[in-house]
Amino acid sequence: MSNDFKKYLVIGTGALGGFYGAKLAKSGLDVHFLVHSESDYKFIKTHGLKVKSRYGDIYLNAINCYNNPDNMPKGDVILVAIKAFSNNVLKNILPPVIKDSSIIVLLQNGIGGEEYITDLIDNTRIFGGLSILAVSKDGPGLINHHDFGSIKIGQYNPDSNPREVSLQLNEIVDDFEKAGIFASAVPDLMKARWEKLIWNIPFSGLSVLLDADTKQIISNPNSLELAGEIIKDVAMAAEACGKTISPDFQQKMIDITVTMTPYFPSMKLDFDSGKPMEVEAIFGNPLRLARKAGYNAPYISMLYHLLKVLQKR
Amino acid sequence: MSNDFKKYLVIGTGALGGFYGAKLAKSGLDVHFLVHSESDYKFIKTHGLKVKSRYGDIYLNAINCYNNPDNMPKGDVILVAIKAFSNNVLKNILPPVIKDSSIIVLLQNGIGGEEYITDLIDNTRIFGGLSILAVSKDGPGLINHHDFGSIKIGQYNPDSNPREVSLQLNEIVDDFEKAGIFASAVPDLMKARWEKLIWNIPFSGLSVLLDADTKQIISNPNSLELAGEIIKDVAMAAEACGKTISPDFQQKMIDITVTMTPYFPSMKLDFDSGKPMEVEAIFGNPLRLARKAGYNAPYISMLYHLLKVLQKR
Repeated sequence: MSNDFKKYLVIGTGALGGFYGAKLAKSGLDVHFLVHSESDYKFIKTHGLKVKSRYGDIYLNAINCYNNPDNMPKGDVILVAIKAFSNNVLKNILPPVIKDSSIIVLLQNGIGGEEYITDLIDNTRIFGGLSILAVSKDGPGLINHHDFGSIKIGQYNPDSNPREVSLQLNEIVDDFEKAGIFASAVPDLMKARWEKLIWNIPFSGLSVLLDADTKQIISNPNSLELAGEIIKDVAMAAEACGKTISPDFQQKMIDITVTMTPYFPSMKLDFDSGKPMEVEAIFGNPLRLARKAGYNAPYISMLYHLLKVLQKR
Repeated sequence: MSNDFKKYLVIGTGALGGFYGAKLAKSGLDVHFLVHSESDYKFIKTHGLKVKSRYGDIYLNAINCYNNPDNMPKGDVILVAIKAFSNNVLKNILPPVIKDSSIIVLLQNGIGGEEYITDLIDNTRIFGGLSILAVSKDGPGLINHHDFGSIKIGQYNPDSNPREVSLQLNEIVDDFEKAGIFASAVPDLMKARWEKLIWNIPFSGLSVLLDADTKQIISNPNSLELAGEIIKDVAMAAEACGKTISPDFQQKMIDITVTMTPYFPSMKLDFDSGKPMEVEAIFGNPLRLARKAGYNAPYISMLYHLLKVLQKR
């Protein structure tokens, strides 16, 4: 479809949705934002959306924003950027904005998000996006982009097997690339999800448990060694589920964390501000998949249960 | 030896040493206390030692207490009741109080304490005592006995195998029993140490990590399930080291915790008051033994590394 007519929808204008949406809109695409919080909605409607970034600020003053999906146009590409623990609202939000040719890209970490939308749309039109992106929402309409910004997009497959990269997928990746986002298409979405968990499980988990940023985790010999053991556990869980993560990749997750600007993962930011954490998507569902496949995943289990206790408080 | 002449020494008059020493002294035995803190020493010398207990208070007003081992008589039975992380001071404290026939009973949880004293005394005269005891030191000369009070005593064996229960050991157990302490002699000290760890590793570890007492741990379904998984891990570590802990025993440790008066393990009390924790004795040494024996002990490892990080702060 010509980009003159293609409509991108951003469902959830938090840090991540706001960042990608602003980049896509800035590149000239027709982007429509659904804003959940009423105060955010009012602010953005009046003042627009600002992304502060070391790679150049973006300021969108005229912005298509909505507080009700019934008022939105139907989307060609619908980017779902809400937190995984809110996925049960999608059955209400998505129907009015879906048409026969819509594609949904679930911009969520962890495993299991698709099950909330498979009743709403044919599963061949469900995609997932895994971001390496350090962003925070620092105020109404204000997103702070700290580092990174790459995204891998793949097509959902209910049996978790790879799928050929379609023209549609390549088109979306092109749109992201033109918007200055380092994007790539991956044939194996489930493998990409496990690869992301190789970083997320140790560093999000330890950050919350130890009240530490990435640099503090990596600088202490005990948490560094523990991160290595957790990474191995996640890799073994992935292996049990049929996804091989190479030792090189595992080591790379440590290495990039060493060079990273010290950073609190979004789960830690959520925890500190008393918000729910994506414990089921990032820990619970991978744990259950691994155990179903015969691997006990002790480190994931321990992180899962500890975070569940902390979450409850 | 007749109890008229037998001298008991208590090395370290904290909650545990003070409690057992007071009970033994109250029963008529000749007990001599080494008090580390100078202010405690002055207080106890003037005002005596008080144990508050739901099973009856004890008040010792005339007490043999010392601030210097050089002034102490040599001991027939030397109860070492300092924290495991202070064991390196024993090479200075013990020589002046040891005679040829002395017996040392290391009243410490965890594994590895004996290596600090094997140079000081023949290993056949080293014993270990494992307590189930909820006590706290609530002020100078003031010990609060919350619950329990049983002790298992066994003879050290460098190769970790069982040893026949000797007459000497039976005599010590008799002294404890006469003092109203539920004591028993065990042939397999190393097995008793692992059994104690079955409780200590999950409940001390989780208490510190989750800032929770025993009841809070056991009441939350996630920490309860996690405690069960950790217990299994400790049992498998023990098994790798040649000590079988029955599933019944493992379950019993959960069951007694359910019925227990809500309680903060001493490691948690130490942590909260900024004191060091016995992380190496209770987590590090068992972990290294298990790994040497070929079992990875993932839960123990995770607790060990997390506590080491928290300890460092």
